[in-house]
Amino acid sequence: MKPSLPLGFQGNGVAAGIKRSLRLDLALFYSQAPAKVAALFTSNAIKAAPLKVCKEYLARNKYFRALVANSGNANCFTGKVGLADAKQIGLWVARGLGLKKEEVLVASTGIIGRRMPLAKVKSALPQLVAGLSAKGIASAKKAIMTTDTRGKEAYFKFKLGNKTVTIYGVAKGSGMIGPKVATMLCFIFTDANISRRALKSALKAAADKSFNCITVDGCMSTNDTVMLFANGLAKNDLIEGGRNLDLFRQALSRVCLVLAQMIIRDAEGASKFITVKVSGARNIREAKRVALGIADSNLFKTAMFASSPNVLGRIVAAAGASGVGLDEDKLKIAFSPLAKKEVEVKVALGRGRAEAIVYTSDLTYKYVKINAEYN
Amino acid sequence: MKPSLPLGFQGNGVAAGIKRSLRLDLALFYSQAPAKVAALFTSNAIKAAPLKVCKEYLARNKYFRALVANSGNANCFTGKVGLADAKQIGLWVARGLGLKKEEVLVASTGIIGRRMPLAKVKSALPQLVAGLSAKGIASAKKAIMTTDTRGKEAYFKFKLGNKTVTIYGVAKGSGMIGPKVATMLCFIFTDANISRRALKSALKAAADKSFNCITVDGCMSTNDTVMLFANGLAKNDLIEGGRNLDLFRQALSRVCLVLAQMIIRDAEGASKFITVKVSGARNIREAKRVALGIADSNLFKTAMFASSPNVLGRIVAAAGASGVGLDEDKLKIAFSPLAKKEVEVKVALGRGRAEAIVYTSDLTYKYVKINAEYN
Repeated sequence: MKPSLPLGFQGNGVAAGIKRSLRLDLALFYSQAPAKVAALFTSNAIKAAPLKVCKEYLARNKYFRALVANSGNANCFTGKVGLADAKQIGLWVARGLGLKKEEVLVASTGIIGRRMPLAKVKSALPQLVAGLSAKGIASAKKAIMTTDTRGKEAYFKFKLGNKTVTIYGVAKGSGMIGPKVATMLCFIFTDANISRRALKSALKAAADKSFNCITVDGCMSTNDTVMLFANGLAKNDLIEGGRNLDLFRQALSRVCLVLAQMIIRDAEGASKFITVKVSGARNIREAKRVALGIADSNLFKTAMFASSPNVLGRIVAAAGASGVGLDEDKLKIAFSPLAKKEVEVKVALGRGRAEAIVYTSDLTYKYVKINAEYN
Repeated sequence: MKPSLPLGFQGNGVAAGIKRSLRLDLALFYSQAPAKVAALFTSNAIKAAPLKVCKEYLARNKYFRALVANSGNANCFTGKVGLADAKQIGLWVARGLGLKKEEVLVASTGIIGRRMPLAKVKSALPQLVAGLSAKGIASAKKAIMTTDTRGKEAYFKFKLGNKTVTIYGVAKGSGMIGPKVATMLCFIFTDANISRRALKSALKAAADKSFNCITVDGCMSTNDTVMLFANGLAKNDLIEGGRNLDLFRQALSRVCLVLAQMIIRDAEGASKFITVKVSGARNIREAKRVALGIADSNLFKTAMFASSPNVLGRIVAAAGASGVGLDEDKLKIAFSPLAKKEVEVKVALGRGRAEAIVYTSDLTYKYVKINAEYN
């Protein structure tokens, strides 16, 4: 077993033919012990079918054992048929694993508005289930990729008493990434023994400073999903609050931030990794609003691509357009050398003491190419 | 005199050297009779110096005679020095024309954060003033262009009683175009005899259905300005309300819509002119929000560039992300053939009876190129 994996988790990924490229496109994640699950979904008003299925199962069930996820088809804007398809896939997986259907969660990413090729999924499932193993997580990680150029994983281990707790996560995402659960799938697994409430609060806190702080194109997906499975196999004393929860939250935040930054580093067509730090705001919400306003501005992003000193004006215009009442005389802007691959932009508003950090990429010919050709 | 021009207006444009390209960059518009002025400015929190000067003069003065406008430098984020510079330029023009300084309005567009080259402007002014003529409006129109590939003008004539009223406008803008006074300069001149109040209300109504309905990149400028000069030389009975105001408003709306659409047709790097019609909304604000959400989505715009059928999913995702509570089952989407230069997208929300139309362009390699290289 890879040392990075928490106890009791396995995975596998196969090529079911959902993608025309015939690459890996169907992933299965499995926990040998029942796992509590905390989840976050897109705030897009249009939600893909798998999200609706997950919401339903999460509301009426307490422990989960598996997650089946596909790329190549978002199963979104597919109506009642799409909902039935998502449930059917979960049901087939449950049967293959000897589980109840509510113990299997589902996720999809890919093209919107097309029906899932059910027959292809069905015929790939026996192989998918049979191949489950700890090291199979590596192919599961690849099977959720769409325009990603590389798989994304991160882990963190820490001690609680004399027990070792591991948090391991995989993510996919490189475009349609906007704030409010950046458009992505992220599945995190831990062997921590933790209360349901603590699990939820830790995930919310970690996501707010990671997935909700990245933007590629400001486009919010219909399929964004972050799920955190905790199966308790580390046998630590139950984490419910206090210092233990702090430790867990810090570890989880670290894993989430690394995954979120990986998404930006792999952003569609990106040539730069840009950090936008806004300080001197009246509150965090205001700081984030200005930071995202800058990070999402196409004019800022193209100037970054060109390493153009004219970026100053574009930062000013984007900050001013963010709906926060700025004072030109108090606004201070600084940036690190523009020709580098990693650029930091600092904007001080002079209105208060709150700050926020947002990560983004530049807008390049390649972004246009990738998104014009993706179908 | 060109038949399209209202009585008593003249213009001129010269190359003052503000632009490195040495193209026309300084424009003067002049009314032989005192004119009432209605104006709209950007809602960006950071406003360029000329806008502040105009606001001050508009608040304390009733009639105006001239407008000096430059391209190549936005005179924005230039602090107190920028404010003094804008006033100085207006003062020089006023002296050259024998006017009071408050009778001359100022406007700028171009790069943000650089000081105006005052000496260059000063030495170009005598030539600018001396060359004023009705046909000189043509060069004034060119002198306000930045990344525009062509000058933009529109006019409309109509009868009020036995008098002919003319409305003529020029505009510049092709990028940094977002809603809330699309990022642009637009100067409109009419010989109508109209009350100040009617002038204002007509301009507001016309702008709401034209300049506030176009978007190239969702980026709101610091310099957006729409000004409407009315010098009364048509000698029609004073327009104050009723049918006459309706006629004036319709004519003005027509001129504004033509100019707004010209901006989109000349949008930076655009290969398509896209109309997004949203119907079935609960109110106009909601309809506009969804329409702009779609029109501003980079993923929608790149799919349009590629004429990709995958645009359906991107419309769904963008509509859903617009913050309006949509019902997937009621959402209806249709679009005209994608391979054409002009594409119409129709989105019916099934929530009510309000509708809105927004005009936009696609996102192309050329947009990135233009904005990466502009400096």
